[in-house]
Amino acid sequence: MNELPQEESQLSESQLPVVQMRPYRWGDPATEVPLPAAAEAALGYLGAHSPEHPPVAPGDATLPDTALSATVRKALEAAVGESNVTSDQLARVAHTRGWSTPDLIRLRLGDASDAPDAVVFPGSHDEVLRVLEICTEHRVAVVPYSGGTSVVGGLAPVRSTFDGVITLDLRRMNALTAIDTESRTATLQAGMRGTRAEQVLGEQGFTLGHFPQSYEGASIGGYAATRAAGQASAGYGRFDEMVVGLVLATPRGTITLGTAPKSAAGPDLRELVMGSEGTLGVITEVSVRVRPAPEVRTYDGWRFDSFEQGAAALRRLIQDGPVPTVVRLSDETETAVNLADPGGSSGGSPGGCLAIAGYEGTPAEVGSRRAAASAVLAASGGSALGTAPGEAWRAGRFLAPYLRDSLLDKGAFVETLETASFWSNLAHLRAEVTKALTSVLTEQGTPPVVMCHISHVYESGASLYYTVLCAQGDDPIAQWHAAKLAASAAIREAGATITHHHGVGTDHRDTYAQEVGPLAVEVLRSVKNTLDPAGILNPGVLIG
Amino acid sequence: MNELPQEESQLSESQLPVVQMRPYRWGDPATEVPLPAAAEAALGYLGAHSPEHPPVAPGDATLPDTALSATVRKALEAAVGESNVTSDQLARVAHTRGWSTPDLIRLRLGDASDAPDAVVFPGSHDEVLRVLEICTEHRVAVVPYSGGTSVVGGLAPVRSTFDGVITLDLRRMNALTAIDTESRTATLQAGMRGTRAEQVLGEQGFTLGHFPQSYEGASIGGYAATRAAGQASAGYGRFDEMVVGLVLATPRGTITLGTAPKSAAGPDLRELVMGSEGTLGVITEVSVRVRPAPEVRTYDGWRFDSFEQGAAALRRLIQDGPVPTVVRLSDETETAVNLADPGGSSGGSPGGCLAIAGYEGTPAEVGSRRAAASAVLAASGGSALGTAPGEAWRAGRFLAPYLRDSLLDKGAFVETLETASFWSNLAHLRAEVTKALTSVLTEQGTPPVVMCHISHVYESGASLYYTVLCAQGDDPIAQWHAAKLAASAAIREAGATITHHHGVGTDHRDTYAQEVGPLAVEVLRSVKNTLDPAGILNPGVLIG
Repeated sequence: MNELPQEESQLSESQLPVVQMRPYRWGDPATEVPLPAAAEAALGYLGAHSPEHPPVAPGDATLPDTALSATVRKALEAAVGESNVTSDQLARVAHTRGWSTPDLIRLRLGDASDAPDAVVFPGSHDEVLRVLEICTEHRVAVVPYSGGTSVVGGLAPVRSTFDGVITLDLRRMNALTAIDTESRTATLQAGMRGTRAEQVLGEQGFTLGHFPQSYEGASIGGYAATRAAGQASAGYGRFDEMVVGLVLATPRGTITLGTAPKSAAGPDLRELVMGSEGTLGVITEVSVRVRPAPEVRTYDGWRFDSFEQGAAALRRLIQDGPVPTVVRLSDETETAVNLADPGGSSGGSPGGCLAIAGYEGTPAEVGSRRAAASAVLAASGGSALGTAPGEAWRAGRFLAPYLRDSLLDKGAFVETLETASFWSNLAHLRAEVTKALTSVLTEQGTPPVVMCHISHVYESGASLYYTVLCAQGDDPIAQWHAAKLAASAAIREAGATITHHHGVGTDHRDTYAQEVGPLAVEVLRSVKNTLDPAGILNPGVLIG
Repeated sequence: MNELPQEESQLSESQLPVVQMRPYRWGDPATEVPLPAAAEAALGYLGAHSPEHPPVAPGDATLPDTALSATVRKALEAAVGESNVTSDQLARVAHTRGWSTPDLIRLRLGDASDAPDAVVFPGSHDEVLRVLEICTEHRVAVVPYSGGTSVVGGLAPVRSTFDGVITLDLRRMNALTAIDTESRTATLQAGMRGTRAEQVLGEQGFTLGHFPQSYEGASIGGYAATRAAGQASAGYGRFDEMVVGLVLATPRGTITLGTAPKSAAGPDLRELVMGSEGTLGVITEVSVRVRPAPEVRTYDGWRFDSFEQGAAALRRLIQDGPVPTVVRLSDETETAVNLADPGGSSGGSPGGCLAIAGYEGTPAEVGSRRAAASAVLAASGGSALGTAPGEAWRAGRFLAPYLRDSLLDKGAFVETLETASFWSNLAHLRAEVTKALTSVLTEQGTPPVVMCHISHVYESGASLYYTVLCAQGDDPIAQWHAAKLAASAAIREAGATITHHHGVGTDHRDTYAQEVGPLAVEVLRSVKNTLDPAGILNPGVLIG
């Protein structure tokens, strides 16, 4: 492992190609995705009307006075430098909650009541330790923050009895600190954005291969803390499968994990830190397995007559191979709503389900893998649609959340949720969750369009990802809350997991407790009490 | 998931093809492996002399009077049935410690001082819960026991202040309780032997693909509790990678884990249970991913000029594919000592290192994978030796531990240890551990032969497995203890893990604490205090 001198690898924030995130909208402010005509028409059908008032500008949002005492502020400034502590309104609003639709709607309405009292930008692991000490001493809650892209309330702390809340924004810790080309591992600081990681690894001929939909905003520490899964998980693995080492800063000190790729030395504590969502400590550094940057990428579209037929085809691929780098399958509704029209492109009957199979690697390897996988897909009833739908998906794959902003502008409500289960349970799970969402939203007078896709596959099961579109009711927050409750109950009832890759946050906390049971929650609480005796770390998240 | 009626899948112990394990010898009493002539000669060279006295028969071993009170015994009998509690001498001796060389030597000398006071055979998860309640109430230590094959002191509890020790032998819980052919998962009770699992899964056309060297004795619960890795881990994965669900019985109740293959719902608590070695609870049921039973198996031998050259070839395979089902590489010494002689077989220069590359699957898939992997091995400097050395290895792969018994009979000492690290650290690690073992044993007047092989490979690193052979000194326990201490220090110094697949037990406890650090040990202790407040579960193991 070559330790890299910091001069070479650590750029100052101003040099970084970091998208300046703006509140109440997703992602890059330079990107806007206008509504396709079909969507405009659908909105009329759903009964959506543009809101009477435009969104409140972030500078005009309502937020509480900062509760941080001068003593605490001084101590934090001494720890990280005066210029790295701010209570500026725009900074506080920009760090208010995450990117779920309810989060965006609240900010559109000017509600920044969950804003932290200050945003603190540490520059090193030791500075993080020092901040945690100060906040423990003064009973100040700490929200670890790297990309800020949570869609499950992972950044909405319960203030309760704390004497303030700070957001610990790790963006200054954005270096590649070591690379080991023989072992194909790299050590990245937690605040490094995914985009930046691909850039610095790319300069060395490598890729991480982790492309979640939040790719433009999310960062390394967040990937690990929330068990992210990227769109190419079939080929490159989930983020938790890429991690070989972790450094965790806690109020009680440091834990350093990862002496070998795999070990029988006790429980795998990396797997206890991953998914802890900032409640046990602050992940400051992550060592990951990297892969050679692919020489070629080819993405194909396939049409299946039904979701069941397509799911069976994906199952054959992941169980018996060869496995594409990317596999996904949209259901009939999602296929119909999407721009790509597999029925039309293939010249066959209309309708059906669009699948994407993508391959990345060397030309020879991609060639043979694609040929063999295509044979399996064809034998499973798929019709090849060529590369046009595949490349269209790849080109637009980070744009869907931008479309959400355009829909919110028009008075539509759009939100997503996801789950996973074993293959034999998937059809039942899909039907039950669709039924729950449809009936609750219909009862409220806003009948929805419910779309579903598979985007992550395993030998024993797969994820289901839902996109729900309806008109905004009078109280869209309450409207969605009821729908989400019903969907969560259906997921629980079907024995599936409450989240495949979005995480628990505050939104899934109660369902999560049911999923693992009270004794497992007690176990996590005992771990938290050991590492964070004052309970300052992300209170209210994960286990409350 | 089809629940199977118990009548069909659960056989009584007498019907099981279970090898009757005998103390002070490995495995099946019907199997004896006589020493090859070369080994006999080597023993003379090492200065080994047959011990003056033959091993003490198990019936004559010295063991403490049973400390269990009549009250406790009655309560246990009420919980599991009178015939399922025994304090019979042979049963107690048979459950004394595990199968490390020091364990065998102590029993050969008639020392069964670590014998449990009684052996209890529960028949169900609920019976296990009841036993744990009783033992908590009466402060009786409990050693969870499935195959009894630990080689790291995982079955040697610290009695300290307990009012007795029982071994909880799970062999009656040996059913396949559910199989899901669509999701390719099976649910197995923890006491099912690996051999039996292959048999019952084979009847359904599946395999687990888990073949550790302890295969003839070890069982499902032990595989999970110790993070076992089988010889075919490259193709089928480590055991922890096969597990999709677990049921844990603890003194505080039950934890059931595994709602999906993968999830972002908090930390992966399956990974906290795996590797806990019976200290947090008793694993009573494991759901595993299964694979179609292979139609063909082909194992090739390859010769490399040096260990470094062979290791680089294995690294190329695992990093860039295609990956064989089994890959291993013996160093020059192990190659020379082994019966297979790659130099001779290939007609080339003598010496070198023997590698095995094995392929399992369908004929077509094995054919193409073998061709492509062989091209990589040849391009990496390997010389093909044909299938003879590969098939010889496969035929004899469970026999090495039997050879140990023959060596002990002749006054030799033979023991193994293992570690893992990242590829870039492997040469350094190998040299340092070899040096440590050699110098400590030489200083004691028993210069050793130190052999090493790689048997588990990952994209970012590999395991190293050492076999050490020397003459028995006057106090072989102390002799090995010193060597083991030096090897452990060298492993720690090199930043590697103290164990890749043997586990921690009591033997590695102190080094393990150094490896993960005091705060991580505190975390584990807090988990233990939550689940096992009286500390009855395997006291002294893992975290002391």
